[in-house]
Amino acid sequence: MTEIESFDIIIVGAGVIGVATAYHLQKNNPDKNILIVDRYAAAGQANTALSAAAVRNMFASSTNQLLTDTTIKYIEHVQEEIGYDLHFEKAGYLWLMSETQFNHPSVKEWMNRMEKSGIHHEVYDKKQLKKMIPSLNVDFIGDEEVDLMNLEEVDYGLFGGDCGFLDPTRLVEYYLEEFKKITHVKPRFGFNVKRLILGAVPPLELPGEPYVWQNKRVIGIETDEAEIHADTIVLATGAWANELLDPIGMNSQTKCKKRQMFVIHAEDKKRLQDVLHSEGFNELDSIPFVILPSAGVYFRPQLQEEGFWIGCGDKFGRAYKYIQTDDVLAPESSYFENGIYPVLSKYFPAFSDVRPVNSWAGGYCYSPDAIPFVYYENGVLVANGASGSGIMKADAMARIANALYQGKGEAELFGGRTISSTALSIKDRDVEVESVVI
Amino acid sequence: MTEIESFDIIIVGAGVIGVATAYHLQKNNPDKNILIVDRYAAAGQANTALSAAAVRNMFASSTNQLLTDTTIKYIEHVQEEIGYDLHFEKAGYLWLMSETQFNHPSVKEWMNRMEKSGIHHEVYDKKQLKKMIPSLNVDFIGDEEVDLMNLEEVDYGLFGGDCGFLDPTRLVEYYLEEFKKITHVKPRFGFNVKRLILGAVPPLELPGEPYVWQNKRVIGIETDEAEIHADTIVLATGAWANELLDPIGMNSQTKCKKRQMFVIHAEDKKRLQDVLHSEGFNELDSIPFVILPSAGVYFRPQLQEEGFWIGCGDKFGRAYKYIQTDDVLAPESSYFENGIYPVLSKYFPAFSDVRPVNSWAGGYCYSPDAIPFVYYENGVLVANGASGSGIMKADAMARIANALYQGKGEAELFGGRTISSTALSIKDRDVEVESVVI
Repeated sequence: MTEIESFDIIIVGAGVIGVATAYHLQKNNPDKNILIVDRYAAAGQANTALSAAAVRNMFASSTNQLLTDTTIKYIEHVQEEIGYDLHFEKAGYLWLMSETQFNHPSVKEWMNRMEKSGIHHEVYDKKQLKKMIPSLNVDFIGDEEVDLMNLEEVDYGLFGGDCGFLDPTRLVEYYLEEFKKITHVKPRFGFNVKRLILGAVPPLELPGEPYVWQNKRVIGIETDEAEIHADTIVLATGAWANELLDPIGMNSQTKCKKRQMFVIHAEDKKRLQDVLHSEGFNELDSIPFVILPSAGVYFRPQLQEEGFWIGCGDKFGRAYKYIQTDDVLAPESSYFENGIYPVLSKYFPAFSDVRPVNSWAGGYCYSPDAIPFVYYENGVLVANGASGSGIMKADAMARIANALYQGKGEAELFGGRTISSTALSIKDRDVEVESVVI
Repeated sequence: MTEIESFDIIIVGAGVIGVATAYHLQKNNPDKNILIVDRYAAAGQANTALSAAAVRNMFASSTNQLLTDTTIKYIEHVQEEIGYDLHFEKAGYLWLMSETQFNHPSVKEWMNRMEKSGIHHEVYDKKQLKKMIPSLNVDFIGDEEVDLMNLEEVDYGLFGGDCGFLDPTRLVEYYLEEFKKITHVKPRFGFNVKRLILGAVPPLELPGEPYVWQNKRVIGIETDEAEIHADTIVLATGAWANELLDPIGMNSQTKCKKRQMFVIHAEDKKRLQDVLHSEGFNELDSIPFVILPSAGVYFRPQLQEEGFWIGCGDKFGRAYKYIQTDDVLAPESSYFENGIYPVLSKYFPAFSDVRPVNSWAGGYCYSPDAIPFVYYENGVLVANGASGSGIMKADAMARIANALYQGKGEAELFGGRTISSTALSIKDRDVEVESVVI
């Protein structure tokens, strides 16, 4: 009989949430043997690397505000005080809105809640926007197509200067390097977890246990080659959570949606360069992350490559996946051409006749209320459902995961603010539903 | 080009919720052309026919109390006043509990809420139970196995006399016959809906529409052979809802779990016959539906076949299915032998050494809060997630579906009590979480 390997904690998934959790667990529980594993050949190679890599604290729910504001402050701390360059740049977020949208009660509530939480934001009117982005089209009069396309005219801009971009690979590397300095166990990559193993508590060593009358918990993982045991299995598996949780009868309540990113270069295109280098928003003299008033289209500047990343947050009509499938990774050129481009070029005619030079796609792991899940049940500590904002919530989620592991009622986030450890759980969920989902 | 068939309403799924909805929609909207379709060769042949066919109004949430109490009163009305025999028999429900369980705050709250809602129930102590069911084992002293098996001793019985059983096929037939009397469209069976068709609103007749910037809604269904259009598609697809909703980006929030039923005959077994014909609970001189204090094991009498149906509501450890798969239909004999039987025979030694003569399995469609979903979005009217109690909620759910279809803010249930039409929706959900899930 082969000896079964065992650890105190196994972390499944080395995306940004997995490595952040590994680091905080090891730091706070220095004696524990913590193994982190990932299906891919290296950390942060799945959806963490495929996102728009944008971070914002401009959420409407106080829950997401707290998670992101403390995580962003930690990101700043790592870059400014620890001196580890994450390529974090505060270019800001700019929501363009019509009069009707701006005056919608949900937007008023959003702004009120940001006010109360001290989240910096500014409102620009049409005239100010036109001055800062001269080529922005703020006047659809005479254009019949915009009605057929349901496009809202730009009247206002809601801007947040503490938001920006970073390099997610650097952030993953930071956590992983710090984890490696203090861990006793070498991380394992190219390591595929097939299923979670349920054990009886106490084990009676009966064939086929656990039976329905036995208490049970997850006692380990099974791979193609081996069984490995641990007291706690952390699932940071994002869009794959159902694959491991459903078979043991735990409902993750998350589902995956595909998101695509299209790259456009501004080189040799004077009008696009002017958009890219819009002045007045930030110290970079860069256009911020821009969310158009219609169809969910958005873009971000990419100053290093003198270009833009363009995406779209379509909701109804875009399939949910039970678990992420391979087709989620395939961008669709027709989606840009027929879906995004017609919208983008109406607001920003400078994009007329340009085509993507590159594109990719990945999966978002959505929770029903767009607030993440962190809970510890049956030996499984689940941290997922960040709903497209894992990078900007990872540090807070990891600290909550550690508080749950340590049996603490409250988690202390970076900067000292606290949250109930069970606030993000399924059973004792205590959150505000998020309304500002891009 | 082939002419595309079209209807006002297509109802997908002719289980009990589908036929009840068909009937109430047609009755209240006599001019509408309503087509009901089902994958199987006849109505009510999937999970409706595979359940324990028990009905109870003894829920802890006022929401489920209302849905079941009005549905059961309608069932009585059909049988007593209309004179259509549904084989509805009020044998009652009996929860057996230990002292600790009985004094748990959730049980106290459950009883208080039933008190307030006027739902009849009675408490029996150990002595009374022993008198009514002489062979019930209420004393585990000296039995070391029960500790290893986590079995709670019987101290109390919570009994509800307005609960009972019916023949689900008869109930389905009743609704379908009544529907057929008033409909203009012949139901279609053996009819497999592959997907829902999304259309642009307004249609611009562009190839590949609807695009991301277009308003969209469901305009029809696609089968292997044809496309059929309708203004409204009702989904009463239970454990298969995700199959049609996920591809269009609607999250049903439901999942399927397998439930098994094992049949035991009491013929020639004097001790089992004595259990079956326990006196004092009801006019049938029958043992009620009995829920044991441990492991989720329950059984119901089946007087016609002089026997019992035995099942188990296992939770953690029993897999969720994204959509119902064929293996859900396969009962597992080892599940009875090693899981159910050891528990059952401890409380009711009369079951010692008996084996099932028959067994079957089916799928439950669970919602996260064990309250059904009824909502009308994007041209789709969804009625599902009854969480194992579709038969006892179908009539109320169907009346809510009709109110939503008619744009009414309130639904009038049988007997005149009302509920907000959006109370069971996902977006404006206003329900009490159910705690009494068997």
